[in-house]
Amino acid sequence: MNFRDKLFDAQSKKQSVLCVGLDPDIERLPESLYPDLSKTDRILAFNEAIIEATLPYASSYKLNFAFYERFGSAGWEVLEKTRKLIPGSIPAIADNKRGDIGNSARFYAQSVFELLNFDACTVSPYMGADSIEPFLSYPEKAAFILARTSNPGGADLQELQIKDIPLYQVLVKQLSLGEELHPGCTGLVVGATNESAMARIRELAPNMPLLIPGVGAQGGDAQSVIRATFRGYGSILVNSSRSILYASSEKDFAERAAEEANRLVKRLQEQ
Amino acid sequence: MNFRDKLFDAQSKKQSVLCVGLDPDIERLPESLYPDLSKTDRILAFNEAIIEATLPYASSYKLNFAFYERFGSAGWEVLEKTRKLIPGSIPAIADNKRGDIGNSARFYAQSVFELLNFDACTVSPYMGADSIEPFLSYPEKAAFILARTSNPGGADLQELQIKDIPLYQVLVKQLSLGEELHPGCTGLVVGATNESAMARIRELAPNMPLLIPGVGAQGGDAQSVIRATFRGYGSILVNSSRSILYASSEKDFAERAAEEANRLVKRLQEQ
Repeated sequence: MNFRDKLFDAQSKKQSVLCVGLDPDIERLPESLYPDLSKTDRILAFNEAIIEATLPYASSYKLNFAFYERFGSAGWEVLEKTRKLIPGSIPAIADNKRGDIGNSARFYAQSVFELLNFDACTVSPYMGADSIEPFLSYPEKAAFILARTSNPGGADLQELQIKDIPLYQVLVKQLSLGEELHPGCTGLVVGATNESAMARIRELAPNMPLLIPGVGAQGGDAQSVIRATFRGYGSILVNSSRSILYASSEKDFAERAAEEANRLVKRLQEQ
Repeated sequence: MNFRDKLFDAQSKKQSVLCVGLDPDIERLPESLYPDLSKTDRILAFNEAIIEATLPYASSYKLNFAFYERFGSAGWEVLEKTRKLIPGSIPAIADNKRGDIGNSARFYAQSVFELLNFDACTVSPYMGADSIEPFLSYPEKAAFILARTSNPGGADLQELQIKDIPLYQVLVKQLSLGEELHPGCTGLVVGATNESAMARIRELAPNMPLLIPGVGAQGGDAQSVIRATFRGYGSILVNSSRSILYASSEKDFAERAAEEANRLVKRLQEQ
């Protein structure tokens, strides 16, 4: 089963496009939580509680590697263990934004797809097609290429005009042309706060799944996301991390995370 | 001591701009070498032998993280141990090409500079200034931003023309403008096979250290590299990996690696 079918199934079953971001910031975990454990064990226990609580609402999970690499090899162990806590029927996304030339890109792809068994990962496109290609060459996996990010510096390169066309749109066109080589394996990352960019990307890539971070704490509006990008289940993954993970800093954190996830799913369905 | 002074000292002392790339490919290690060890222990033993043999010639070392992440947390342990084998007076570069927004970039920087204690790292610029900034905010460290890479797809984005100026040059200008905020902390990555790009980047960034991979196995010519970019010790790091690591696949691999490193240093001095 390829990635898009797996995503469609998971989203249809739960009537949800919500992707829960497992980005556990040790400074923000409830203080009362597992005070006797090591930092990395606390993170693992937190992740386990969050996955268990949000499973009825999350149709995918995304792990941002920065939150794990911060603890070196011990953090990577938590990452490996967390990956295994996500049920096989739910797409698991590695948000690692790798990008390198030939051999190195192949090793990064091996790491994330074969060793860690993620269903998809994020990729930085600066080094061009042959740096992306190794991530697209697994028929059952997918790579989400950074297109238009909504951080303040996102415009520095992405909005540079190439004959009146912003760079990120040139990139999306390049990727669309290459898509038939690896059907169903290419996705795009686009920030939730920029409705016109979302709409334009959807126009240029009508069939690609879009990974959309920034709804919730980062201020993206669920309504504008759905309007600009939703084309049925399997077409978008709307990521939220902080608003769910830190819905409460008390003992009821998991329960409150579930409520927040449920609320977000409903908001995304209402449109 | 900031990164540039440390680099200057190491290079002056050894009369060498050679940066040895510790990119150990398990498939290419000498078969007779430590056959009883696990893969990751073989890599560590190989790295130790290579560092010991090349130390008279290498004025810096670079670790490409892809070759370690391939083995997950076990690979990260080898990376951590290998880092500690590099003497404190020799700059150690993390070639990890990270790049993410605010918090995440800060965690990646913490990981590579505080936890692993590398002196510098490589950074992918696609997400713009605020994604690079956290890597520049350590006064004693440096970040080498990908500018013009020499892989086949390097031109896909990097050579797009913004009002007749290639993207990578627009980027270098942006970085030069921001340099005074973090003096001595910005470097650039430029491939060795493209002499005109090297020369143009040197012109736009006369004082930035350039990390130049691709001399040796990848075909870059030492003479053209030196002519285009060398402005005294501390100004460039010329990386070579495969031609040194795999100079021999027999028991004499370390000795032959040292000979190859020595030969390369001489070739770089002769210009």
